Amino acid sequence: MVYQEEISLTTGGQGDMHDITDKVQEAVTRSKIKTGIAHVFAVGSTAGISTIEFEPGLRRDLPEVLNRLIPPSRSYGHEQTWQDGNGHSHLQATILGPDLTVPVRGGELVAGTWQQVIHVDFDIRRRQRHVIVTVYGE
Amino acid sequence: MVYQEEISLTTGGQGDMHDITDKVQEAVTRSKIKTGIAHVFAVGSTAGISTIEFEPGLRRDLPEVLNRLIPPSRSYGHEQTWQDGNGHSHLQATILGPDLTVPVRGGELVAGTWQQVIHVDFDIRRRQRHVIVTVYGE
Amino acid sequence: MVYQEEISLTTGGQGDMHDITDKVQEAVTRSKIKTGIAHVFAVGSTAGISTIEFEPGLRRDLPEVLNRLIPPSRSYGHEQTWQDGNGHSHLQATILGPDLTVPVRGGELVAGTWQQVIHVDFDIRRRQRHVIVTVYGE
Repeated sequence: MVYQEEISLTTGGQGDMHDITDKVQEAVTRSKIKTGIAHVFAVGSTAGISTIEFEPGLRRDLPEVLNRLIPPSRSYGHEQTWQDGNGHSHLQATILGPDLTVPVRGGELVAGTWQQVIHVDFDIRRRQRHVIVTVYGE
Repeated sequence: MVYQEEISLTTGGQGDMHDITDKVQEAVTRSKIKTGIAHVFAVGSTAGISTIEFEPGLRRDLPEVLNRLIPPSRSYGHEQTWQDGNGHSHLQATILGPDLTVPVRGGELVAGTWQQVIHVDFDIRRRQRHVIVTVYGE
Repeated sequence: MVYQEEISLTTGGQGDMHDITDKVQEAVTRSKIKTGIAHVFAVGSTAGISTIEFEPGLRRDLPEVLNRLIPPSRSYGHEQTWQDGNGHSHLQATILGPDLTVPVRGGELVAGTWQQVIHVDFDIRRRQRHVIVTVYGE
């Protein structure tokens, strides 16, 4: 059995992080699937999906760490193609990765108490984002 | 067809790396699934799953690289929330990612000879860990 | 329903990046699966799979960023085991990750217009590479 739905998000960019655990769980519940997996995918090349403890400290720390490792800069090759100032956004998104799969057991996502599913927008402006959730199992 | 089981691990923290390939393969064998995928998920926000050549050198190198890029420090925002000294553990785990999916063909995981499935514990103390393996296919 | 095929690639190493979106889409089309997921896995411990906007700038930027963060060096522990000069290749591959799952809707991969599926070879020499695509759904 397979069930798919699309989640929409309005994001602020610059590492803006959203906890989408409840929305993914709602998709799992609507799917009526009890045992299987839930796949979560960020459409677009400047956003990513992962898990983290969603609390104010780490919500600041993750974008700060990524901005230190892959800083905003006009010197990326990407600038020669587009001159849009978001080369670091693309690179940070690729490193975090656009997809995540979480197990489903007894109709519930199996994850740690302090382990939330997050969408992170690395672009440099507000965006309307789309996330595809596909639930698989029986 | 879907098959799911839980693996337990006792880990040492500080980047302690375990080769869990055999345990994942055993789950695939028990599932009797011949063609499909095996999904592996680390429950908890300070551990990660990936692949690496599991040999003593890289087993040291990976935690060292991550400690250089995202150093242990009391200056993370996470400290203001919890004061537990493991902000870097959370960030390293999020960058590595908690999940991995490996193809299954002829009832065997398809991976390189030097490509093992690893669990890495980034926390700062011994932990009892849980990994969920979900096998999907026919 | 599950469908699986193998893609072969000749790569140049040193961060050589290939856009494999069309090959993955062809597998999805051959599978006749309309709704589900497509899983893409790089066999081998010195290559990775992710998404990026596949344009000449970022094609240079991603390997440059990874070489800055995890530089080629003879000082990795991996050298003590193998003396083959590709410790950084293993570490870069593990950080990017060997796998990616993309949703399928209406028989098409769902991804952004500027979001291509890429294979990146981090090894230090030409390689013949294998990628397993598994499509799942109905």
